[in-house]
Amino acid sequence: MVKSKNWDPEAKKRLLIEAAIKVLNKKEYFQAPVDEIAKCAGVAKGTFYLYFKSKEEIYFSVLFALMDKMKALIDGVRKTEVSATKQMARLLEKTVGFTSDYRQLFNALRSETRPFKDKFHHQLQKKILEMNQAMSEIVKNGIKSNEFKDYPPELISGVFFSSATLIFHQQIEHHKDFPPIPPAMLFEILLKGFGK
Amino acid sequence: MVKSKNWDPEAKKRLLIEAAIKVLNKKEYFQAPVDEIAKCAGVAKGTFYLYFKSKEEIYFSVLFALMDKMKALIDGVRKTEVSATKQMARLLEKTVGFTSDYRQLFNALRSETRPFKDKFHHQLQKKILEMNQAMSEIVKNGIKSNEFKDYPPELISGVFFSSATLIFHQQIEHHKDFPPIPPAMLFEILLKGFGK
Repeated sequence: MVKSKNWDPEAKKRLLIEAAIKVLNKKEYFQAPVDEIAKCAGVAKGTFYLYFKSKEEIYFSVLFALMDKMKALIDGVRKTEVSATKQMARLLEKTVGFTSDYRQLFNALRSETRPFKDKFHHQLQKKILEMNQAMSEIVKNGIKSNEFKDYPPELISGVFFSSATLIFHQQIEHHKDFPPIPPAMLFEILLKGFGK
Repeated sequence: MVKSKNWDPEAKKRLLIEAAIKVLNKKEYFQAPVDEIAKCAGVAKGTFYLYFKSKEEIYFSVLFALMDKMKALIDGVRKTEVSATKQMARLLEKTVGFTSDYRQLFNALRSETRPFKDKFHHQLQKKILEMNQAMSEIVKNGIKSNEFKDYPPELISGVFFSSATLIFHQQIEHHKDFPPIPPAMLFEILLKGFGK
């Protein structure tokens, strides 16, 4: 690889990941994703393989980039000047919007990353933990401000995320036997419980 | 296949599935599971392949058999003479015991079924729906008896199951950064909410 003065491998890698997000979110099925990603990023196909050794590497890079975006979303909401309760309600709305925006992409990622999940297990767990920790900061604020009960913050975050996956699955699968889930109703159940 | 007078293919299939549950739950890793399953069921290896065409077919049959057991557990609890609240609390405890009993097996199933999930997608969705419906019957009783708020029963069941997977993942993954989750505490959060 000839290194030019402006050679910034991390920047080029990010460029390719962003191109992959665009391309993979566009279609239900693609014959030659690598060709299209390289084209969209404005680089030669050979260049692509300098940055990603295999197809699964780009897919996992995209998945991790989405998880970073989600974490940034959480951090952004935490800095807004509203109560922790409102932050969490808003976050559930935003999560639903986020997964809806990237519906096609999540669909593609689901089948393409599945066979390699053991290989990327530790990285995946690390990213999940990062998201949970970002969320837990909001929960801690809510416990301090006496809005939330004093449960382990990671547990409340865990309940929040696992319930959010209900909406996520509903979006991806379109279960006809399962009623659509309004995020505000789901949040009400989490906040106040389903018991009378 | 020579059909004897006592030839009952469904019974033999069930025998092989039960043998697979025993064998696959015993070890972290196995070189020749089919040999061992056939041996445990007391049939020739060739017989095994009369009932299951591929390795993934036995793995999914085992997974579906476990889901049927779980559904039977739910139906059993629903028939006990206690409040719907107690039934759900008990069920969460039992679910934890169930996944703990079959920990090795779930671990094996997770990696072995993953590459074929698209192929068995509809059957899997059907089983999940059956479990959700069984659970929803308990929830409906709780709404009738004025113990639970009048949310869609499938949604409460969904929140219940997705939260239960938190404990399940904790059992399988042994996250050291995530505190252990007492089922009673999780149920309290679901019933009364994490808000003050």
